[in-house]
Amino acid sequence: MLGKEHFTVTSLGPRAIASPMQLSNTYGDNLANYVHDDDRQRWLKGRLTVPGVKIGEESATTEAVLLEKAGPRAQIYFNPAHVHAGIVTCGGLCPGLNDVVRSVVRALWNRYGVRRISGIRYGYHGFLPEFALPLMTLNPDVVDDIHKIGGTVLGTSRGGGERTAEIADAIERLNLNMLFTVGGDGTQKGSLAIADELERRSLKVAVVGIPKTIDNDLLYIDRSFGFETAVEKAAEAVSAAHAEAQSAMNGVGLVKVMGRDSGFIAVHTALATHEANFVLIPEVQFDLDGPKGLLTRLEERLAKRNHAVIVVAEGAGQDLVSAAGEDASGNSKLGDIGSFLKEIITAHFKAKGLPINLKYIDPSYIIRSATASPTDSVYCERLGANAVHAAMAGKTRLLVGMVNNKFVHLPTPAVVEHRSKVDPEGSLYRDALDSTGQPLSLLND
Amino acid sequence: MLGKEHFTVTSLGPRAIASPMQLSNTYGDNLANYVHDDDRQRWLKGRLTVPGVKIGEESATTEAVLLEKAGPRAQIYFNPAHVHAGIVTCGGLCPGLNDVVRSVVRALWNRYGVRRISGIRYGYHGFLPEFALPLMTLNPDVVDDIHKIGGTVLGTSRGGGERTAEIADAIERLNLNMLFTVGGDGTQKGSLAIADELERRSLKVAVVGIPKTIDNDLLYIDRSFGFETAVEKAAEAVSAAHAEAQSAMNGVGLVKVMGRDSGFIAVHTALATHEANFVLIPEVQFDLDGPKGLLTRLEERLAKRNHAVIVVAEGAGQDLVSAAGEDASGNSKLGDIGSFLKEIITAHFKAKGLPINLKYIDPSYIIRSATASPTDSVYCERLGANAVHAAMAGKTRLLVGMVNNKFVHLPTPAVVEHRSKVDPEGSLYRDALDSTGQPLSLLND
Amino acid sequence: MLGKEHFTVTSLGPRAIASPMQLSNTYGDNLANYVHDDDRQRWLKGRLTVPGVKIGEESATTEAVLLEKAGPRAQIYFNPAHVHAGIVTCGGLCPGLNDVVRSVVRALWNRYGVRRISGIRYGYHGFLPEFALPLMTLNPDVVDDIHKIGGTVLGTSRGGGERTAEIADAIERLNLNMLFTVGGDGTQKGSLAIADELERRSLKVAVVGIPKTIDNDLLYIDRSFGFETAVEKAAEAVSAAHAEAQSAMNGVGLVKVMGRDSGFIAVHTALATHEANFVLIPEVQFDLDGPKGLLTRLEERLAKRNHAVIVVAEGAGQDLVSAAGEDASGNSKLGDIGSFLKEIITAHFKAKGLPINLKYIDPSYIIRSATASPTDSVYCERLGANAVHAAMAGKTRLLVGMVNNKFVHLPTPAVVEHRSKVDPEGSLYRDALDSTGQPLSLLND
Amino acid sequence: MLGKEHFTVTSLGPRAIASPMQLSNTYGDNLANYVHDDDRQRWLKGRLTVPGVKIGEESATTEAVLLEKAGPRAQIYFNPAHVHAGIVTCGGLCPGLNDVVRSVVRALWNRYGVRRISGIRYGYHGFLPEFALPLMTLNPDVVDDIHKIGGTVLGTSRGGGERTAEIADAIERLNLNMLFTVGGDGTQKGSLAIADELERRSLKVAVVGIPKTIDNDLLYIDRSFGFETAVEKAAEAVSAAHAEAQSAMNGVGLVKVMGRDSGFIAVHTALATHEANFVLIPEVQFDLDGPKGLLTRLEERLAKRNHAVIVVAEGAGQDLVSAAGEDASGNSKLGDIGSFLKEIITAHFKAKGLPINLKYIDPSYIIRSATASPTDSVYCERLGANAVHAAMAGKTRLLVGMVNNKFVHLPTPAVVEHRSKVDPEGSLYRDALDSTGQPLSLLND
Repeated sequence: MLGKEHFTVTSLGPRAIASPMQLSNTYGDNLANYVHDDDRQRWLKGRLTVPGVKIGEESATTEAVLLEKAGPRAQIYFNPAHVHAGIVTCGGLCPGLNDVVRSVVRALWNRYGVRRISGIRYGYHGFLPEFALPLMTLNPDVVDDIHKIGGTVLGTSRGGGERTAEIADAIERLNLNMLFTVGGDGTQKGSLAIADELERRSLKVAVVGIPKTIDNDLLYIDRSFGFETAVEKAAEAVSAAHAEAQSAMNGVGLVKVMGRDSGFIAVHTALATHEANFVLIPEVQFDLDGPKGLLTRLEERLAKRNHAVIVVAEGAGQDLVSAAGEDASGNSKLGDIGSFLKEIITAHFKAKGLPINLKYIDPSYIIRSATASPTDSVYCERLGANAVHAAMAGKTRLLVGMVNNKFVHLPTPAVVEHRSKVDPEGSLYRDALDSTGQPLSLLND
Repeated sequence: MLGKEHFTVTSLGPRAIASPMQLSNTYGDNLANYVHDDDRQRWLKGRLTVPGVKIGEESATTEAVLLEKAGPRAQIYFNPAHVHAGIVTCGGLCPGLNDVVRSVVRALWNRYGVRRISGIRYGYHGFLPEFALPLMTLNPDVVDDIHKIGGTVLGTSRGGGERTAEIADAIERLNLNMLFTVGGDGTQKGSLAIADELERRSLKVAVVGIPKTIDNDLLYIDRSFGFETAVEKAAEAVSAAHAEAQSAMNGVGLVKVMGRDSGFIAVHTALATHEANFVLIPEVQFDLDGPKGLLTRLEERLAKRNHAVIVVAEGAGQDLVSAAGEDASGNSKLGDIGSFLKEIITAHFKAKGLPINLKYIDPSYIIRSATASPTDSVYCERLGANAVHAAMAGKTRLLVGMVNNKFVHLPTPAVVEHRSKVDPEGSLYRDALDSTGQPLSLLND
Repeated sequence: MLGKEHFTVTSLGPRAIASPMQLSNTYGDNLANYVHDDDRQRWLKGRLTVPGVKIGEESATTEAVLLEKAGPRAQIYFNPAHVHAGIVTCGGLCPGLNDVVRSVVRALWNRYGVRRISGIRYGYHGFLPEFALPLMTLNPDVVDDIHKIGGTVLGTSRGGGERTAEIADAIERLNLNMLFTVGGDGTQKGSLAIADELERRSLKVAVVGIPKTIDNDLLYIDRSFGFETAVEKAAEAVSAAHAEAQSAMNGVGLVKVMGRDSGFIAVHTALATHEANFVLIPEVQFDLDGPKGLLTRLEERLAKRNHAVIVVAEGAGQDLVSAAGEDASGNSKLGDIGSFLKEIITAHFKAKGLPINLKYIDPSYIIRSATASPTDSVYCERLGANAVHAAMAGKTRLLVGMVNNKFVHLPTPAVVEHRSKVDPEGSLYRDALDSTGQPLSLLND
Repeated sequence: MLGKEHFTVTSLGPRAIASPMQLSNTYGDNLANYVHDDDRQRWLKGRLTVPGVKIGEESATTEAVLLEKAGPRAQIYFNPAHVHAGIVTCGGLCPGLNDVVRSVVRALWNRYGVRRISGIRYGYHGFLPEFALPLMTLNPDVVDDIHKIGGTVLGTSRGGGERTAEIADAIERLNLNMLFTVGGDGTQKGSLAIADELERRSLKVAVVGIPKTIDNDLLYIDRSFGFETAVEKAAEAVSAAHAEAQSAMNGVGLVKVMGRDSGFIAVHTALATHEANFVLIPEVQFDLDGPKGLLTRLEERLAKRNHAVIVVAEGAGQDLVSAAGEDASGNSKLGDIGSFLKEIITAHFKAKGLPINLKYIDPSYIIRSATASPTDSVYCERLGANAVHAAMAGKTRLLVGMVNNKFVHLPTPAVVEHRSKVDPEGSLYRDALDSTGQPLSLLND
């Protein structure tokens, strides 16, 4: 079991300034409250199987951690008048980026009275000297309607976060004392290194991460922002594939969705559309040939219903793509499982003398660049505000996220270690098998 | 703290039949598993405040319960060949009803091989002799595309559930041994009484509820199906109100949303749109007049920004509506807070010589009858399948729902006692205040 | 037949400046061309019935006019460097207003190099001294994303256009030489009076109208902008009403849509949804009682199918509303036919002892404030650009619109005389009767 | 000028049966009317440029034809009790197919009392012996909700229409006396050949085509069904490309849309989104290199604004694709201009040392399989009903379509001769250049 120290959040120092938010400090007066550092939220993983379980005693198979709750503190670390806050968005697009930027700006400005807020352009590149990118001045007027636009108004890029010293130089030069980093795994590893470097220089800068992973594969948190919108858009593509498949003789619809290491989008999309017959994810191996392999199962399905729909996560079947020599790179670049399956399936049925009509859809850019659904907008709005509360309280090296429906502080080092995965023995995947009618396993014995 | 017995699920009897689902019974083989009755999911309410908290020791302010996990059992109670299952939808419309019906039918048919499935027409009325409503024969073909249509293909109605004896007669006559009741509070109280009556008659009928409350006010569960779709549609109405308000001099947009006792839709909608300035809910009283009252705050807002948007839950401000003599009934029928506010606000500013331009929108039918969003579709698909697993295992007098992201069995009596409410001192409402800029309280001292 | 002079467009004077657009003047070089004033588009109304018709000879029942084509002229009247253009949006909201504003600004700026463009705030009120409303400076950056927002960024209001002298004073003071008026009938009558007053003062100001009528009742033009979006949104409300009706015993869905004098939205909505059973429009009288009256027909429908959907235009059945004493005003204010029908129908069936379940939806604000559909966006984009071409060419007292799929100049006086109506004997209404199954007439003999 | 005989519609014989529709035959009684064969609608192409034009005298540059109006006739040819109608959908998917099928079935059943209606499965293949495909029985219940599903419930396929004798055999064997063919160019050429063969056999079968071309390239008609929906969906893809482009340093969004010979979708999509900077269509050649070529213009755009969006029709730039040796086939198969541009553009900027970030989207399957927008639903509803009216009147060898906003009968031979194209010198393309800011020509001198 992970100890409490593993989840302790770093603070820049004692908090001596009264928050301007004027919330209540008393429970029972029916007024919204400040949050105390001792307020905790429980995260649980695994089963509480236990013949004769007693309440409060978890079995050995259950991991439990108590996490610090997010929210405004009565005493804050930074004097709002002295704050210069920076926001940077990194990596691939994800629905909700502009909602997050908007929320951070508005919480700083409206709740705390911060008046210097700067957008860093095009990811960490915005800090690097060779690009000479000017800052973007942010205020409530500038961000008022940006949530109606996909993408990120700040711009984004990949990489750059490893140039820690130069970024710390820039932060020093710009006199930033607060940095919000919106990005995935790599971005947050970068922000950790930056925070370390800033500490080495004895600079009091709060580095607060807002985790972005459209794949929904972040440890501990319920879901990542943009994930539900992604499922919504992916579901549209599956509906298209289904209409195509159903309208053709032996029609096969094949849709590749995001999910490098984790099949959450694929599984949710299959469940959402009620129209997929196979869902292939990185966590579960499958054979192509043999009596239990995908191709045989597909034949059976076509014989019975004349059409089929397959949802495949981009990270699924990587052993097969390499085996087929599709990807010669040797590095972690993914083989293109979508195109691979398209060709293999077409060739297989051609060889069998059974012409099929396969339509392959790769909707990824349409998914990534969508505006956030209302559910995701709620989440982004709350993520941004809670990130601001954390930073104003002088907390650093942490991510903000939702755990069992409550917002918490997650120390960055604890989160970036691993990724969350679909449990092949859990209820989500089981319900997806139920819904698709896919056999328990596509592996031959 | 509620004891374990409070959450014990009733079974019709020992389970002697092997499930036809052919899942795995072993953890570690990477194959989807059956669920054991001892598998538990923790539900927690309240804060774990605790200077010096120890893991596994909750403070006195925290209530914890362990709930039985939902899912397919290796041994089932009913022989699928002998099953005649009935499904009934009751009460007002809610997005996802057809998804639930579809899922129940498909899980029974495809997973268990049940071949007699009947839809009860127009709610509990479908059981009553005077309506003489024929059953609707259900199978996968009939339900294949119903999730693309709003409303419920079975039809629905209010009431009738109190005529327990007649309903039990009908169930006996129809030889149903399984009844899925999709409905709210009243419906589930009815289904409890029906289950009691059936037990009195020594009939082995599994009565499994699928809780439906668009207001999202069910105890214990994370959210009810249709809730997110409702927020999505309500958000569209708020956007319309915002466009109207912003386009007029001193424009005021007023939107009434569902929420008789609980303001969840109102609060989420305000957060989702980022466009509301006031959100009024049943849980939080407000004054109209006086320096802190709504009308004064609205004046201030208009003076500053020339337009304002108010989201009001239908159950908010009931003390005011009555006070204004708007509702003479004396019973629990709600006063029409929307029309009341429309008139009061218009009159107030007219008296002040400041003409405003108020647009009032009541989108409730458009919300209720929407098709489910993909997120809700996922939820309905899983709810239906898990309800079927419960019924096939001979479990009865229970509701299926999601708690901390896992599906569980909730004994009906434990759930229908109270309703869930927005906690005025909790983070959700606080974040809504943050987002709207609404003052901490609209009550004068 | 209307003579050519009736459709002659006014010019401010000879055009001596070469257009900066650099289009081609030659047909046949495969390059986009300037338009000549002699280019004409034919508008035809009525039937060309004709035993032995000869091409080019219209029968007496056909009215034909030749209209000046819109588009950029090779020679223009205004020197772009001297232009100060104003844009004003008036009256009720309509989808596409911001698209039009955006298009006018971009065409002026990008195509002609105009650099002084001002938005008049809140309709004609923006010109009036007592409101002291500052102008809004417009350029491509300001308008870049406004089409993603409903309403109008300029603000709007009703009336004020009759204060011609004061408006002309303001135009003179602001040194505007170009005014784009986006609005309906009243607005355009106002703009005509303004143009007359400006001419009286010998001011060379091009007043170009962009007709806005969500009801689609403008003479000559194929359709008005926003109309298709309105139908789209109205169709959603009808779908909601249909889901409600179909889900209830004797469910009746009643939807009121816009259409004061003309039933175009109602008829198109009925056709679009395929779900309406009755469509009631201002152009066609109907009885309530009697063997052919609406109530009897509704009874028949419910007896046969258990549910019914009625679409009613707000201007329909005004004789009945007054007869029922619903509207005591005596002026042109419409009686509320929606609420009237709701009460009459409910009372009728109650008296008959047949309880029905009526749901009434009035979606007008949601319709008006929607963002434009892509089809309407195309139209608005082209309307705005062609309005600019007309103004730069020194044309005035005209409206821009689409006739038989081509953009033309319509002299304002010719257009504002009457309104276009649904022809009860034409194919559109007939096809709507076909689609709904509504009897040929709801009038008793 | 095309003579009247060119547009004369074939009839199977005299009409001796009174229509059961009970419309009015008198104009002026305010009741919907039957249509007479002499009722005409004018179609005009080209300009009416004419110094001193007189009404009724078209200049030499204008082509005019008078077309027979569609609609119900008072006397019909077929006795409804003897009718067996078949419907077949052919070729690629297009939004609205199910709306058309639904409308044909409902008009036959509800308006004329026809009770034998059969769906031919999977296009013309459904007639061919080797597939042995059973008919699909159609009635209002079967088709009630199919418009909420994309694709075609009948299934579709390409080709088969050339096997005229076998199809005629099948029609004879099935005793069909009415065939509705929903399909494009090839399909309608096939239906013409079938009609000829049936006439040769002296079989009285009405063959009525409902033209389907998502590219909107049919001669004479205003637009084809599904076209507006296609633009709507294509616009979403362009918005995605724009969000991607705007969010990256030197981001380029490239979207390929349908349009083999005609650029209507591309041009309308560019206009609808207001976000495209280049629109490339089959009708207008362009150079890649040189001072005016696409690559240079793209460089200029990126230098000025850092991002760019290109919309390309699939049939554009075919000379370039071949020139680049991308397509060795020599036949009419299109080269893949999208992938070609992607590679050429990327290589070009790489060679220049200016790294760009190009995202390529090909949304065609998502477009084709969408459900119809309300505007298209209206059109499909009316197309289907008018096709039924034509067939019941014994008319054959014709297509139903909308010309200048009225439905007409178009003799199939006259329509399938050529395709409609975007006129590079017309106002549509010119307005697109205006909107995109694309230079007048991308050809070097």
